[in-house]
Parts: sequence; structure tokens; C-alpha cells
Amino acid sequence: MNAEISTVASGITAPAGFRASGMHCGLRKNKSKSDLALIYADSPCSAAAVYTTNQVFAAPVGITRDHLSDGRAQAIICNSGNANTCNSDGYEKANAVCRALAVEAGIDEADIIVASTGVIGVPLPVAPILNGIPELFARLGDTEEASEAAAVAIMTTDTKKKEYAVSYNYEGKTIKIGGICKGSGMIEPNMATMLGFITTDIDITPQMLDRALRSVVDDTFNMVSVDGDTSTNDMVAVMASGLAGNRRIEDEDGAYRVFRAALETLCLQMCKSIAADGEGATKLVECRVKGYRDIGGAKKLAKSVIRSPLVKTAMFGADANWGRILCALGYAGAAIDPDMIDVTFRSKAGELPVCRDGRGVPFDEDKAKEILSKNYIYLEVDMKCGNCGAVAWGCDLSYEYVRINGDYRS
Amino acid sequence: MNAEISTVASGITAPAGFRASGMHCGLRKNKSKSDLALIYADSPCSAAAVYTTNQVFAAPVGITRDHLSDGRAQAIICNSGNANTCNSDGYEKANAVCRALAVEAGIDEADIIVASTGVIGVPLPVAPILNGIPELFARLGDTEEASEAAAVAIMTTDTKKKEYAVSYNYEGKTIKIGGICKGSGMIEPNMATMLGFITTDIDITPQMLDRALRSVVDDTFNMVSVDGDTSTNDMVAVMASGLAGNRRIEDEDGAYRVFRAALETLCLQMCKSIAADGEGATKLVECRVKGYRDIGGAKKLAKSVIRSPLVKTAMFGADANWGRILCALGYAGAAIDPDMIDVTFRSKAGELPVCRDGRGVPFDEDKAKEILSKNYIYLEVDMKCGNCGAVAWGCDLSYEYVRINGDYRS
Repeated sequence: MNAEISTVASGITAPAGFRASGMHCGLRKNKSKSDLALIYADSPCSAAAVYTTNQVFAAPVGITRDHLSDGRAQAIICNSGNANTCNSDGYEKANAVCRALAVEAGIDEADIIVASTGVIGVPLPVAPILNGIPELFARLGDTEEASEAAAVAIMTTDTKKKEYAVSYNYEGKTIKIGGICKGSGMIEPNMATMLGFITTDIDITPQMLDRALRSVVDDTFNMVSVDGDTSTNDMVAVMASGLAGNRRIEDEDGAYRVFRAALETLCLQMCKSIAADGEGATKLVECRVKGYRDIGGAKKLAKSVIRSPLVKTAMFGADANWGRILCALGYAGAAIDPDMIDVTFRSKAGELPVCRDGRGVPFDEDKAKEILSKNYIYLEVDMKCGNCGAVAWGCDLSYEYVRINGDYRS
Repeated sequence: MNAEISTVASGITAPAGFRASGMHCGLRKNKSKSDLALIYADSPCSAAAVYTTNQVFAAPVGITRDHLSDGRAQAIICNSGNANTCNSDGYEKANAVCRALAVEAGIDEADIIVASTGVIGVPLPVAPILNGIPELFARLGDTEEASEAAAVAIMTTDTKKKEYAVSYNYEGKTIKIGGICKGSGMIEPNMATMLGFITTDIDITPQMLDRALRSVVDDTFNMVSVDGDTSTNDMVAVMASGLAGNRRIEDEDGAYRVFRAALETLCLQMCKSIAADGEGATKLVECRVKGYRDIGGAKKLAKSVIRSPLVKTAMFGADANWGRILCALGYAGAAIDPDMIDVTFRSKAGELPVCRDGRGVPFDEDKAKEILSKNYIYLEVDMKCGNCGAVAWGCDLSYEYVRINGDYRS
């Protein structure tokens, strides 16, 4: 596991064998905001995905789950502007999109991953998508711009495009992994998070790709919460082209472990960018719980702090109200001893112990304000009863969140 | 169960045998906001209480639980402005408060219910309370003004005092029940709600009083959510003086059932007032789930809708985004069939079906806006798979919630 993992450019098109494109097909009234994205592999790939746990799930989620049952895919098509959820013709229309793309590209319809994001319960205007597919396909490119076009087309209330890529060398081969993703409301753990699309040129079996994705998502995307709302549409999908020329990964060997570490590095970047760009967010908040008895409990504790509206508003106001952190730990659903808990605030501006053994310690309010006014805040919690830890990411709760969501449909 | 339950004046002092008072003792800088309340019974009462489920709980909660183990109490003392939670001297100080009141009143220290509400983790300045007790005791009265003085003294960010009383006749006797309560942040189901103090002159055993309280709280206070944060300090306590002269209730007979119904009527008023006055709330939102398989599941579904920040912001914006309701039902943790669900919006301005069999139905946006702009909104959900239902109460999420909580401590 000593391969050096470095960040590289080009996002989703960085790995060998992938092209991407994005366009405005007409789902959105605003012509300057693109609304249709395509990620395309030159040949069929090993593929895996994780999906929303919401029982109300979008038609494209149901269809993708079906298409990926053989662990194989060649393209991802995604529209923004409409979720295609809770519509009587949702499956019919999502299937029509897959069929049109299959015909245009000359690939198998069952090798297509389809996704939608936007408002729920409004019938999907499918004609703009069907009419746009030829141009979308013609525009495919393997440049940085092509990745960016896809990244921008899947955005909804995101204020920043989110694309990342990492690279590492292993046994003489260069492996690349690229990803694009979008937030930024209805963001909540348990793969219910958002849309994330990942490409890699590693050669790996679908089973091992699935295992790597699930294990990484548990520690990354599933530890992000913006507002506690588990969306109906979300998925993280990965396609592996196999063009890196490595010995095919078929087991949990050293090559698998390095790949998993690189995939985690990429997913960490993606999920932190989603938390930092949560609806209305002015800062990224990271809660690091350590010293707990087991990892499952540590995850519950960290997520409970990140989810608390009172912690989130305190972070917005740079208010060192650590009692709210203890409160959130107390109702997290993991057994705790309040009298053991230490809490420390940290950011670029320094660090400040505010609670020791469950009791407040005197601190400098001006220093606290300075630390909590930065745009990346660490809330460090030591439970002092074990050796397990977990990290969760979220954001503050601002006026802007209320404004965005008070009138989302207009 | 055909006794007529009517609303009467005087709040906590309506039932025979109770007096109340409130004063500014000096915990708050603002002298015009009182911060210490006393509810006093002329002789020891049957008493019961339910408490926060948070593992981090205030010292007064621990002490009250201990004091009420014999089902007997004679006084409730409560300060606002400081939670007395997460302090190393919390128990010592709360005990000192009980001791001072016991001496002043000449009652048993173990017959005192003690409560605190306010900021967590700041040591309680106990001197103002100890110094204030003689005056607080001297001010006790059985008037409407006395009840109001106590109701105002327990307020924190509440914008309105909350006091209610009901009365009914049974077997020739008049029974009264009165209550005061406070919200308005850190409000979340599972008796973790707020402070509620109830008096009644009914003659009832502590066991039956406890049973009535628990069963009513499950359907009222535990169905309220303002922000999903389960506080460290909260309790609902009831004292029964026995002065109504009724045949003592010792079993689940007809008299018990009428008392339970009247207690529920009172608690419903109290908990709706807490929801309507949730921090920053501009409207009361009531979610009524019917047609589900079991009551436990129906409660989960109703609470999930009420808790969803996206539903809450849509209500604030009077935006008929019913897809968010389906989304919240889908992640509630109760098995559902999305294709069966009907959703209807209702208020004084009329009612509007927006979803039938899990699909959107065309509706008039102006009519929806008119309905959702009222200050009491009903979200009616029919799961069409059974005969059980539940009701939950909450409020919208506004800019004001963020403002209040962004800088609570200053």
C-alpha cells in the first residue's frame, strides 16, 4: 500500500477509454444551463453502483439496478432539471432514453446507466432528451473541457462543478480514476446522497469493483449529510475500462488494496466538495470522533453532530456553543459516558479545547470566533472509551438554505 | 367517555390546591424577563413525569427522577437562562435549590421537582436563585396572573406564553387540569421535547397518573418536532392534588378514561402551541397519516414528514412541492407502497389533492399558494393499506430560525 496517489487533471475523462459530453437539450428554460450529460466508454466495462435507500426511488434508479445486474456497462446518461420520480410513465420514458442512446451508439441497451435529478413528481419531458442524443453523442470528447461539460450538465443547485481525478503507479502500470458528482440538497447518508459517476482504466472484475465501491462509499459518501433528507434519485456508479494493462484484479490482494485506497482518495475529494457546496453552505464542517468502542457507533456519533440543525446554525454564526455537540452525541443512538467526552474546535486559525471530561473549560471567546469563522471547521470529539473512530462531513445552515428551498420549483 | 371537556381560564392555578409565581431573580441580564418559576401545592400530591431520552441529561433531570421515585411531589421550581447541564457542580447546585425551597416552604426536599432551561455547559449562578426563593415563595398566588407569571418565567426563545386549562364534570364532581409549557428550539419527539408542567385536582394514584401521562405524551408531545434536536433538559411533570373530591382513580375504569381524554385535550393544546411557536416558525404544520397497517409505522411516517427540512422550507415558501413529502415517507423507516399514496393539502383556504396513487395530479398553483399561505396547514396522507393513523405537529423552517440559532449565546 505504498503507491503514491496523486491528483491529476481531466476529471472523468482522465482514465483511458472514456469520453464525455454535456449540452442544453431543453429541459431547462435557462438555455445557458446545460441539462444532459453523457459518459461513454469505447468498449463494455466492469461496472458497479450503489443506490438510494429511499423506498420511493426514481424510475432511472430501478432501471439502472436492473441493467447492472450483470456487472457490465458502457455508458452513463444523466439529465438534470427533472427527477423522473413519482410519474406513471417514468419507466417508459427512462427506457426510451436508453433505447435512443443504444441505437445512436450501437451498443446494448442493457449496458446503459441512466440517472435523473431535479424536481419530483413532474412528468419528464422526454422529447428534448431524445432529440438531443445525436448531438450529445457527436460532441463526445476526451479533453478536460469534455469532462467539465458533463460535470456542469448534472448540476442542480450546486454553485461549483465537481470533478476530480487521481493517478498512481502499481507494478509498472499507471492507473487513473476520475469522477464527477453533484449535490447539493436532499443530501444524507446511506447512499441517498447525490449523483457520483466514476471512471477508471483499471482491469478488475465486476465483483471486486462492486466490493471496492461499497466499502469506500460507506466511509465517504455515506458520511456526508447536508440536510438529513434522503433523496429518491441518487446513485454512485463506477465503470472500469481495463485499458491500464494491469494484471486483472480478481481478489483482495495488494493491487486491490491500493486501488481501494486511490478510490477512497477520489471519493473523499468528491464528498467533501458536496458537503462544502451544500445548499446555502458558507463553510465545510468535519466532525472527527475518536476513542470510541466500535466503528459503527463512532459513525453514528459523528453523523449525529453533523446533522444537528442547532450545531449547524451555531457554525453559521461562528458561535462556540459546544453544549449542542454534547446534546447531539447524547441522542445519536450509541451508548456514551458524557463525563468522559472531550471536545476541541480546530481550523486554520488554530485549535481550542472547549470541553474536557464532559465539562466546559474556560476559553477565549474571540479566539473561538476566529477559529469558527474559517471556511473549513474541524469538530474533534474524543470519547475516551476505546480505539475506534469515524469522520463525517457536512456544512452550516444558513439563511440561503431557507431561501433556496422555500421556492425551489419556481 | 361522554363527559364534555371545556377550556377554562387560569392555566396552572385553575385546579384546586395549587398556587404559582414567577420573578426575575437575576440569572438573565435583562431585568424585564423573569427567570424563576414556582408551582406549589398546599399538600403533597400524586406526581409523575417523563424525561428526555438524551443520554446527556441535565442535573435537575437526574434529581427529579430520583425525587419522583415515590410518586409524590409538592412543588416544581424551574429557572430559565441556564440549563445546568454538563457542569461538574450541576447536582450540587440543583440540590442546593431544592434544599433552600424545602426550608422556605417547610416541605420535604424529596417532594420537589426541579428543572432548568437555557444554555448548556455554563456553570449555573446559583446565588440569584437561592436569594430569590423567599420572594418567589411569598409571591405565590392562585390567580390568572400568578399562572401567567410562572408561564412567562420559564420562556426562553418562545415568543408567546403557553398556559391552558380544561375542566369536565364526572359523577357530580368538577375536575380541572391546568398546564404551562415552553419550547421552542431543541424540540423533537421522544420526551425530549420541552418543559411542560401540569396540575390537576383529581384524586388518582401515582401509578395511574403515571400511566395516563405516558400514554398521552406518546400521542401529543412525542409527536411534535421543531428541529429534530433532542434536548438534554426536558420533562413533562404532573401533580394531582386530589381536592376535586372524586372517588380516587385506582384502575383503568371509566373515570380514568375520561381523565385521560381531558389530559390529552390539554396536552394537545400545549404541544400545538409549542409547534406553532417553534423557533422562527411562521405557521403550524400538521401531518395526518391514515390508512396504514399499524400505529407505530403511521407515527414514523407522520414524524418523518414533519421533520424534513425540505418539507419545512417548502411550507415556509408556500411551495406545493409534494414530492418532498413522498421522499420523506420513503425514508421514514416504515415499509410503504409508493404507488398507493394519496397526498392532499388543506387549510382554512380549502383543500387540494396533489398526489393520487403516488403520481402527481394537475392542480391550480394559485390555489395551492393560497392554501399554503395560511398559518395552520394540514398535510393529509392516505397510505391506503390499512386502518391505522397518526398525527404529528411541527412548523416551517424560516430565515428567523437560522438567525435565532446562529448566535444564541449572545
